[in-house]
Amino acid sequence: MKKDYIFTPGPTPVPHSVSVAQSKMIHHRSADFGELFSRVLDGLKYAFQTQNDIVVFASSGTGGLEAAVANCFSPGDKVAVFNGGKFGERFVEIASFFGLDVIQVAYNWGESANPSDCERVLSENPDIKGVMLTHSETSTGVVNDVEAFGRIVRQTPALFVVDTISGLCAAPFKTDEWGVDIAVGGSQKGLMTPPGLAFVAVSEKAWKAVETARLPRYYFCFKAARKSFSKTPPQTPYTPAITLLQALDVALKMIKDEGLENVWARHELFARATRAGVKALGLELFAKDSSRASVVTSVISPDGINSGDLVRLLRSKYGIFIAGGQSKLKGKIFRLGHVGYFDRYDIIVQLAAVEFGLKELGFPVELGTGVSSAMKILYEE
Amino acid sequence: MKKDYIFTPGPTPVPHSVSVAQSKMIHHRSADFGELFSRVLDGLKYAFQTQNDIVVFASSGTGGLEAAVANCFSPGDKVAVFNGGKFGERFVEIASFFGLDVIQVAYNWGESANPSDCERVLSENPDIKGVMLTHSETSTGVVNDVEAFGRIVRQTPALFVVDTISGLCAAPFKTDEWGVDIAVGGSQKGLMTPPGLAFVAVSEKAWKAVETARLPRYYFCFKAARKSFSKTPPQTPYTPAITLLQALDVALKMIKDEGLENVWARHELFARATRAGVKALGLELFAKDSSRASVVTSVISPDGINSGDLVRLLRSKYGIFIAGGQSKLKGKIFRLGHVGYFDRYDIIVQLAAVEFGLKELGFPVELGTGVSSAMKILYEE
Repeated sequence: MKKDYIFTPGPTPVPHSVSVAQSKMIHHRSADFGELFSRVLDGLKYAFQTQNDIVVFASSGTGGLEAAVANCFSPGDKVAVFNGGKFGERFVEIASFFGLDVIQVAYNWGESANPSDCERVLSENPDIKGVMLTHSETSTGVVNDVEAFGRIVRQTPALFVVDTISGLCAAPFKTDEWGVDIAVGGSQKGLMTPPGLAFVAVSEKAWKAVETARLPRYYFCFKAARKSFSKTPPQTPYTPAITLLQALDVALKMIKDEGLENVWARHELFARATRAGVKALGLELFAKDSSRASVVTSVISPDGINSGDLVRLLRSKYGIFIAGGQSKLKGKIFRLGHVGYFDRYDIIVQLAAVEFGLKELGFPVELGTGVSSAMKILYEE
Repeated sequence: MKKDYIFTPGPTPVPHSVSVAQSKMIHHRSADFGELFSRVLDGLKYAFQTQNDIVVFASSGTGGLEAAVANCFSPGDKVAVFNGGKFGERFVEIASFFGLDVIQVAYNWGESANPSDCERVLSENPDIKGVMLTHSETSTGVVNDVEAFGRIVRQTPALFVVDTISGLCAAPFKTDEWGVDIAVGGSQKGLMTPPGLAFVAVSEKAWKAVETARLPRYYFCFKAARKSFSKTPPQTPYTPAITLLQALDVALKMIKDEGLENVWARHELFARATRAGVKALGLELFAKDSSRASVVTSVISPDGINSGDLVRLLRSKYGIFIAGGQSKLKGKIFRLGHVGYFDRYDIIVQLAAVEFGLKELGFPVELGTGVSSAMKILYEE
């Protein structure tokens, strides 16, 4: 008997009740759908901690990032992108593809974005129209200090655009309190739902920018979405991913029942336990500053062990899906996810699997060392 | 006991085995997903009757239409759109939003697009870069003669772009044989899968246009999709809608098992039976030429009866979801779907419900008249 455990930082484990909610289908031009969709929009506002409008698209999270760019800017607009990993790079790519004038502030992978850089760049470039930041940089494990950036950007005319696709409901995120004008989320991370939905929370400041933005958009048009959402019952401009919305409805209720503060605390605890387990095995963390790293724990693969080999071994023999390194980190790090539907035993299972795998690959492991250290933290709380 | 019957022309009924296939989830960077995705791409090639590459997006069908425009054209390119309904209008809108020079050939709703108009427009405008046609115009019930258009367009440098979102696997459609350069489909119609996936079949002629097209696209980029699809195992550039692909895999197998020619014949038979039933009730069809109208049967609401009232009554009291008229046809027609997962009893049930509803709204109906006429056709075959 080999069960499969998806411990990657997206897609993440889906609760059974969320999974089976996909197994029926209602019509999207019906009162029932209107009720469902209203509940989902309310639940998303809670998850994003916002009173802003939220638009929902049938798309991957990347579609939400593209929507942010296409709805808020015009060709040649100057934007600053703070890039410390694969998803920071994606922001740079999208903005460049759409003809924006991109000032890139690049960090070594594993480093956090520095708010003082934001201050400097904005004062040197008062014509900046947007500041783009990745909340949780899934490729490195870094969670950036969105709050500190927000304090700076809100004093300028620039829009503050944040990718919180893997951060939402995993690390604290307060759209309104932190002054985030555009926050982009996805269904398949902290929201515990299968992939295929993207969400964008749009502030009043951002809506004003939408009015004058000249980049072409149709499918991802915020205004078309808002117009349909405000109908009674609320609708979507195009046929929505109905079954995924049904699943999300169940997941959002779980999050509300647990309470967002508790959800964040759980992620923080599990991250702390995972870090303790990893360190007890004599391994080194990849992210320089792990104080906010509650989404995914990135670990430097020990000398002589290619992290890809570990990932493959855990998948093929041990039924555990963890992630390796992406792009320039290929073979060099592995990533232990604890985003979304995780309980304490998942943390133990994941560390146990890592111990099995590393031992089999020749790394000296006293079996149970990492697990024991994690258990002490999981017990104390 | 009131069961719910979704007889709208999208979303359409989903077989139980397809529904429950959403209830598990595999990781999208795995050999298992690679096998699934390869099978899905092969199945789609069969459904589209093509050897061309097929790209798959997590989006509504409209996203696929936008992808067609954004990948193949540059600002100012001249295109001809043959527009006979709401989805023809959508093509006009998308092309206009993206700054194309749109020659619109408009028809009264309910009329088919005329191939001789295509011949004329192309000879008057030898610089036309694209011809856009809606295969099945869901808003009116008309199915256009794609084959005849294809014979004309293939002799010119223009790309032939066809929206077959509601037509695919419902009315005959032969991408390669008919010279369709860009064919756009969706999951929630003839493919019997919940909404949230769009497909685009891209010909060699279209790939050449992609190389020089300058409209911005990122999420919907064909080249990025092809690059990921051609990896071993095949992947997608961004996290795919995994559970919907699992469902589609089951649906495509059903279509292959039934055989596409048989699927088309079944739709044609059910359309014929529905038309016979409707006519036996003394009602008039809306589409002028119903010879190819195998997707949805549009019916003119009798004098004094608002079709919206009929639709609402059937939903609230009889558990039957049919569609009313859209835009300018609101209140004037109702539409009986027979796309996708329909058997002969669904046709009978739908007509029975229409009889109940019309009678209750004061239209003189001898109960069973429409059903009997349909049954005669369903029995003979």
